[in-house]
Amino acid sequence: MNNRIITISREFGSGGRTIGREAAKKLGIPCYDQELIAKISADTGLSADYIREKGEYSAYGSQLANIFADRDTKGLSSQDHLWIAQRKTILDIAEKESCVIIGRCADYILNDAADCLKVFIHASMESRAERIVRVYGEGEDSPEKRLKDKDKRRMAYYRHYTNMEWGAAKNYHISLDSGVLGIEKCVDIITGLY
Amino acid sequence: MNNRIITISREFGSGGRTIGREAAKKLGIPCYDQELIAKISADTGLSADYIREKGEYSAYGSQLANIFADRDTKGLSSQDHLWIAQRKTILDIAEKESCVIIGRCADYILNDAADCLKVFIHASMESRAERIVRVYGEGEDSPEKRLKDKDKRRMAYYRHYTNMEWGAAKNYHISLDSGVLGIEKCVDIITGLY
Repeated sequence: MNNRIITISREFGSGGRTIGREAAKKLGIPCYDQELIAKISADTGLSADYIREKGEYSAYGSQLANIFADRDTKGLSSQDHLWIAQRKTILDIAEKESCVIIGRCADYILNDAADCLKVFIHASMESRAERIVRVYGEGEDSPEKRLKDKDKRRMAYYRHYTNMEWGAAKNYHISLDSGVLGIEKCVDIITGLY
Repeated sequence: MNNRIITISREFGSGGRTIGREAAKKLGIPCYDQELIAKISADTGLSADYIREKGEYSAYGSQLANIFADRDTKGLSSQDHLWIAQRKTILDIAEKESCVIIGRCADYILNDAADCLKVFIHASMESRAERIVRVYGEGEDSPEKRLKDKDKRRMAYYRHYTNMEWGAAKNYHISLDSGVLGIEKCVDIITGLY
């Protein structure tokens, strides 16, 4: 396989999705984000909302949620089935074309299966809080509370399915603080490395 | 203070020191590495070898070593005294001029005190093992054993004095896998960001 893939793992509110989209545009390759969700939805019949939530977030921020989940006769939860479908879709895409893939543990899934540049985008709590209010508006909870909840559940999901630590520099080829460096500079660095 | 500092934290064997030196040369600013050790030695009267070892590594890879260390009447161990002296020297340097500083928790020490670009350089075990044999020659222990020991003791030292997690992407503005990206590319990215 000669396709080259950029995987973007990102903290919620860090602008990782925007960075991935801009990088893909600059490189003239597709970016799989909502398109990935739509494809998994078409393959599985699951709703986009369900995939958006259950394909990256643990239910209660701990693996306990998974232990008590409803399971089929093979012992698999509905979230496990989504993981399997999501994994297959990501492998299919990487087989088909060079692209950017946002989130969904694509870094782990493609590790040995493709020529990947594995990127992690993060930013300080303050910077992300400012961004999510600007982009998504005010919520019922404080932005810090929303971020902490998202972080905790994404971290738990990642650990459960990959057995690796979320946000450890060694899991990525490059990790960037988008709050300090700025979105544009992050895009430049990533496209320069491709 | 208008000085701009680049701090390079690095895994042993990742080539972080070389990257820091090359970046400094390209930017025309000094790089504090052995020079930092010499300065701390001049300030404290401690030997360079002692500083090299005790200024970045915990004795046995755990904080236990510190609990049982000989302490003065203020409850400070000799390693604590070195930490204090090292901290002061790093703050003095940052006050004096723009520069690159290698290791010694300068990222943590200068966090709020200077305009810093905080860099972390890492690489896979295989890549680092290959490098340390090439650069430092064969040792009595296997390269993997040497690396694991160094990693463990550096991690413990960092956690003890900074209360932060060594190698977590969020502690740095940029983290780079020098094994995959190559030394030269890492230098280019860092100098491009300065």
